[in-house]
Amino acid sequence: MNQDIFQRKLQAGIVGGGPGSFIGAVHRVAAELDGQAQVVAGAMSADLQKAREAAAAWFLPRSYESYTHMAEAEAARPDPIDFVIIATPNHLHFPVAKEFLERGFHVVCDKPMTFTLDEARELVRLVERTQAVFALTHTYTGYPLVRQARELVRQGAIGEVRKVLVEYVQDWLMEPIEQRGNKQAVWRTDPARSGIAGAVGDIGTHAEHMLEYITGLRIRTLCADLTTFVAGRLLDDDANILLRLENGAKGVLTCSQIAAGEENRLTIRVYGSKAGLEWQQQEPNQLILKQQGQPQQVLRVGQPYLSEAAKNAARLPPGHPEGFYEAFANIYRGAIADVRRVKAGQQPVGGFPTVYDGLRGMAFIAKVVESSRRGAVWVEIDEE
Amino acid sequence: MNQDIFQRKLQAGIVGGGPGSFIGAVHRVAAELDGQAQVVAGAMSADLQKAREAAAAWFLPRSYESYTHMAEAEAARPDPIDFVIIATPNHLHFPVAKEFLERGFHVVCDKPMTFTLDEARELVRLVERTQAVFALTHTYTGYPLVRQARELVRQGAIGEVRKVLVEYVQDWLMEPIEQRGNKQAVWRTDPARSGIAGAVGDIGTHAEHMLEYITGLRIRTLCADLTTFVAGRLLDDDANILLRLENGAKGVLTCSQIAAGEENRLTIRVYGSKAGLEWQQQEPNQLILKQQGQPQQVLRVGQPYLSEAAKNAARLPPGHPEGFYEAFANIYRGAIADVRRVKAGQQPVGGFPTVYDGLRGMAFIAKVVESSRRGAVWVEIDEE
Amino acid sequence: MNQDIFQRKLQAGIVGGGPGSFIGAVHRVAAELDGQAQVVAGAMSADLQKAREAAAAWFLPRSYESYTHMAEAEAARPDPIDFVIIATPNHLHFPVAKEFLERGFHVVCDKPMTFTLDEARELVRLVERTQAVFALTHTYTGYPLVRQARELVRQGAIGEVRKVLVEYVQDWLMEPIEQRGNKQAVWRTDPARSGIAGAVGDIGTHAEHMLEYITGLRIRTLCADLTTFVAGRLLDDDANILLRLENGAKGVLTCSQIAAGEENRLTIRVYGSKAGLEWQQQEPNQLILKQQGQPQQVLRVGQPYLSEAAKNAARLPPGHPEGFYEAFANIYRGAIADVRRVKAGQQPVGGFPTVYDGLRGMAFIAKVVESSRRGAVWVEIDEE
Amino acid sequence: MNQDIFQRKLQAGIVGGGPGSFIGAVHRVAAELDGQAQVVAGAMSADLQKAREAAAAWFLPRSYESYTHMAEAEAARPDPIDFVIIATPNHLHFPVAKEFLERGFHVVCDKPMTFTLDEARELVRLVERTQAVFALTHTYTGYPLVRQARELVRQGAIGEVRKVLVEYVQDWLMEPIEQRGNKQAVWRTDPARSGIAGAVGDIGTHAEHMLEYITGLRIRTLCADLTTFVAGRLLDDDANILLRLENGAKGVLTCSQIAAGEENRLTIRVYGSKAGLEWQQQEPNQLILKQQGQPQQVLRVGQPYLSEAAKNAARLPPGHPEGFYEAFANIYRGAIADVRRVKAGQQPVGGFPTVYDGLRGMAFIAKVVESSRRGAVWVEIDEE
Repeated sequence: MNQDIFQRKLQAGIVGGGPGSFIGAVHRVAAELDGQAQVVAGAMSADLQKAREAAAAWFLPRSYESYTHMAEAEAARPDPIDFVIIATPNHLHFPVAKEFLERGFHVVCDKPMTFTLDEARELVRLVERTQAVFALTHTYTGYPLVRQARELVRQGAIGEVRKVLVEYVQDWLMEPIEQRGNKQAVWRTDPARSGIAGAVGDIGTHAEHMLEYITGLRIRTLCADLTTFVAGRLLDDDANILLRLENGAKGVLTCSQIAAGEENRLTIRVYGSKAGLEWQQQEPNQLILKQQGQPQQVLRVGQPYLSEAAKNAARLPPGHPEGFYEAFANIYRGAIADVRRVKAGQQPVGGFPTVYDGLRGMAFIAKVVESSRRGAVWVEIDEE
Repeated sequence: MNQDIFQRKLQAGIVGGGPGSFIGAVHRVAAELDGQAQVVAGAMSADLQKAREAAAAWFLPRSYESYTHMAEAEAARPDPIDFVIIATPNHLHFPVAKEFLERGFHVVCDKPMTFTLDEARELVRLVERTQAVFALTHTYTGYPLVRQARELVRQGAIGEVRKVLVEYVQDWLMEPIEQRGNKQAVWRTDPARSGIAGAVGDIGTHAEHMLEYITGLRIRTLCADLTTFVAGRLLDDDANILLRLENGAKGVLTCSQIAAGEENRLTIRVYGSKAGLEWQQQEPNQLILKQQGQPQQVLRVGQPYLSEAAKNAARLPPGHPEGFYEAFANIYRGAIADVRRVKAGQQPVGGFPTVYDGLRGMAFIAKVVESSRRGAVWVEIDEE
Repeated sequence: MNQDIFQRKLQAGIVGGGPGSFIGAVHRVAAELDGQAQVVAGAMSADLQKAREAAAAWFLPRSYESYTHMAEAEAARPDPIDFVIIATPNHLHFPVAKEFLERGFHVVCDKPMTFTLDEARELVRLVERTQAVFALTHTYTGYPLVRQARELVRQGAIGEVRKVLVEYVQDWLMEPIEQRGNKQAVWRTDPARSGIAGAVGDIGTHAEHMLEYITGLRIRTLCADLTTFVAGRLLDDDANILLRLENGAKGVLTCSQIAAGEENRLTIRVYGSKAGLEWQQQEPNQLILKQQGQPQQVLRVGQPYLSEAAKNAARLPPGHPEGFYEAFANIYRGAIADVRRVKAGQQPVGGFPTVYDGLRGMAFIAKVVESSRRGAVWVEIDEE
Repeated sequence: MNQDIFQRKLQAGIVGGGPGSFIGAVHRVAAELDGQAQVVAGAMSADLQKAREAAAAWFLPRSYESYTHMAEAEAARPDPIDFVIIATPNHLHFPVAKEFLERGFHVVCDKPMTFTLDEARELVRLVERTQAVFALTHTYTGYPLVRQARELVRQGAIGEVRKVLVEYVQDWLMEPIEQRGNKQAVWRTDPARSGIAGAVGDIGTHAEHMLEYITGLRIRTLCADLTTFVAGRLLDDDANILLRLENGAKGVLTCSQIAAGEENRLTIRVYGSKAGLEWQQQEPNQLILKQQGQPQQVLRVGQPYLSEAAKNAARLPPGHPEGFYEAFANIYRGAIADVRRVKAGQQPVGGFPTVYDGLRGMAFIAKVVESSRRGAVWVEIDEE
């Protein structure tokens, strides 16, 4: 088996992420942050000129005119990329992933995982068949204290989960900016590229993933009230959703892209029979643990009292803020380690969102939209 | 007309509020805080000995064995009380109010207003007939910055209301303390004294009132998921409710008395087409106003830029925290001024929660319980 | 001995506190809040008409034209006031206190205690001779969590005190408002009424008192840099002071009335060999306890884990904010209880700032001004 | 002129930063974050084995046994490094910088700049002579909102600066951990490697630099009270310092490494004649602007209303937290751009801390220590 894989940086190629993309650059920084991988190839835009310029701006040695060319050419090289990064709009996630998986590459893919639920199911089968590493970049569960929260729930620190409040609100779509040509807004609000959901797909899935990640519980049934507040928009820009979890716990998930004055407010609170937890993405370096009749405890990143999972997700001493890039890099850290392991013939370890989390997210989207279309009635998520 | 009423403190009598009551003493402090009224009579407990001791502890000149005796005796005095304070469990609100209203007294009553929706409707008719001042102590809309929030919405500062998130969570009933004899918990969880709702009646109505007070909008339909998490409890201790307002805005109201580690967290956020507002009861001296692409504004009590309504509800210079008592006293301030006006033959001015707000609250309770019992389906509030 | 004193409200008279005074009304509210005392007499202004109007606005039965008349007349009544409240500018504190003490009255006096250090020394002797109750209204040590902080230090929870940072900053004098006739500002910046210090006397003494109260340690030497930033002003409006405490701890005290944008920011942090404490007056209902390598603890008012001293200083359940009035009322609560005890022939118990704290404050002022005048050099406080 | 320099990543070498170093890895991440440079060579430890292992862990192509070897060898290569990173203990900063400067390399150096003030003066001459780019990694002025604060002061938004409060407190040296072998603590508390100051050198200089950076004003005189609280320690671990600035403003700088429970609390407040500013490193993504009688404004990273300087220092949309690495990378961003410019024969632009800031820092250290040794007296900083 190839142990050399531990003696060098991994090489990555990126699909999408060209001019106008915010997330493309995030993938590059996050992939490279720990010095364990380097982006060396790209098919960064369907527009050839733009693709070339984008690759040059990143000093990439290899720029391709399309992802199919890239997959083919890299597969033929003696020193091909080790994994591909998918940073395109949603409708391309599946075809790109399929192309690279079938040629034996590992994949890091943006969320929501696919365009449709059926694609998600097929992707699960594809990953199971190829045994490739597949990481889904649900950034927010990369934060050290989100991992701490999960550990606390696991260890029983809050008792049985009773109530969960999760919200993800933004204001960037409060005006019809897609009608004024904002590139990000154009595809996010276009059913042909985003899928059947708007805010629910873009950020609701982050909230859903975080809830299931921290609590370790599945959402069983839900009742969703979706709204499109901006006239002329084709997808939802706001959602309020009642939840019932598998253990009898209740919850609310609210997400919005028209919440005036909010930047990127993702917050979760979990109340158990013994204690409560609270975390906010915009101040990610603290986690509050509350017990009745006890002083509130403020847990902070980098401290020795944290779990191994949380300690391993931090790079700096306490009081040196780590943020979004570092959380994103934690997803990559896990994926890169597993790519190395698999290439060396070892068992993968995981510790990052997978194709199964992606399937859950797509099932969530499907059921939320179904509930809302039927009049905001209760529906069941039957997908595992 | 009697103008002497402006030359003396008003006199009040209190029903309930004896040993074990938290809210009784709050009523006394709030009624007297501005030096405009004094509690001089009481029927503070059904237990005669306790009633006498409670009255003595407050140095009340007159202690009665029952509210009916008090109403009768005070009505017969040359210097009777000017208004009665009702601080009993819910099931007595209506009979006590009726007794005093019919004898010509003004009333300050705790919430929820009555035991049943029918009583509430009757009380409305009674108040309309007697033309008495009737104030309902929804404390939280007495806070200066809640009044500021209402003014901002009224003036159009946030544009058209789109989304409202209101929550009121506590942890005091997270254990079955009613089964261990906690007096407050015993009656709060007893359908015979509290009515058909638990948490929804006790605190959900505060949240509902605040939402309608600030937005100036009615809740039209709702979908409520009520839960009783503590085994053996007879009423709900948790609720998640989807809301649709009369103007098409959407909302979520969540309340809980099993939210581990939460003290008395009442929070409201209102997002409009132009800006958002945020206020938290536990840090009541600031209100956040957020506009897309503008610095957040933190408005603080006592500052000159506030509306008259907010300025009039504060007593101290900025930076001198005012809290729960002072908010409660603001309800009394309005009620006392109106009692004086009515006694002097002037028009009442209002500015505090009335019998109509109480009716809305009772209708809300009725519909929430109906929705939940029918399987958390959408129901309409048809009561005005 | 007279046990009747426990069966009735105490009666108080007030000197000063008339129109334009902020603190006069605070004294009334605080004295009466617990229902244990009532203000019944006043000499509220040197201007007769204003005095009469002020007394009428409070419905006081007895209004006097001067404090000497009041002292004489009350002393001659069969039902005299039990104590006097001094709410005048500083230069009158001593003569008023003397007048009433010598006639056998108890005293609650605003701070700083006197006009000069010599007066303070004489007042100490007078109080010792008359054995009267003398309470100084250093409001801020009336807050429950300030009392908790003191208990934590006493119990050794933070180890040996090493470093103290205390600040009290405001902005109300950042413009020359005394030159525009602001009544409060006129006397506060007038050496003939305020004494030798401006900001240091008005708010610096609060900071000094809080530091010594919480730590239980005396300031031994100090080095003070006073500034008058506003042109034409006769007293300091800003001070930065290095401190050395009796146990070898070091500290900084900064106070300012020109700190643009600050309302009433009084903050103290105490770092010991084992833990640190932090409290802020503008969010007074929480106290932070920090230990190296442990989650921060947030202690909150009304919780069962607090010390008796802190519990006794709160009136409401957790999460119901108490503020400035309630802290002020805690000073009165202690003073009123002691007046009752002394009148009943019992030993006073204390638990509020006394004439000795007032003497410390006046010594502090004297030394700060001396240090600064001599070029910001180190000077010793030799007064006990 | 060589324009190719814009077509490739710059290459860097690092001296120091091996095992046990926290800052070494920070330099690598920060230098590489924007994809504009790559560390390719290192002399990472005096211990050869450790140096080799450290270089291998980073996959560095070239590992050297000493910095002199590295300087010599790189200078002889056809593709030498473009700049050197100095991440050693303080006593080596000067000799390493000299070695590389004299061979024509550009330098990024950790702070405090040198071991002695004399070395600092010599380094200034050396940089002036070689015309090299010299960047000093005062991380904290790399934060976007610190740059915004500077711009606001420059533009007159707060008026004339009157009062500055700056603090930097930590707890990591509250116990004698150097006596237990903590590697970081050993050299930080060793006069032979750190210089004449402990906390003042390590973190006090950050506070001093931030103060002068934001205000644009020089500290003219100071009065410093240094303390060593931990028995057996050879350098200060705490300092309280009074400041007078060149324009007549007053200030306090406090720093400590024994402040129990504090992680890395660097805070600055600047009060001007018109408004005040407040920023805290542990929540770096907001800056508070306060004006008397106006709502407080909370400015946040990534927003369009920020200055160009602040906008250019952020990489993500609002609400996506950026932290310590990103601030550090902003120093590098400026330095790398200037290295490119100089190599291309263009004028350097600056925008990062330079050798002159380093000289100010060393003069500050010298004067603080002198003041304290002479009894905490006032001394003047005469160095420009």
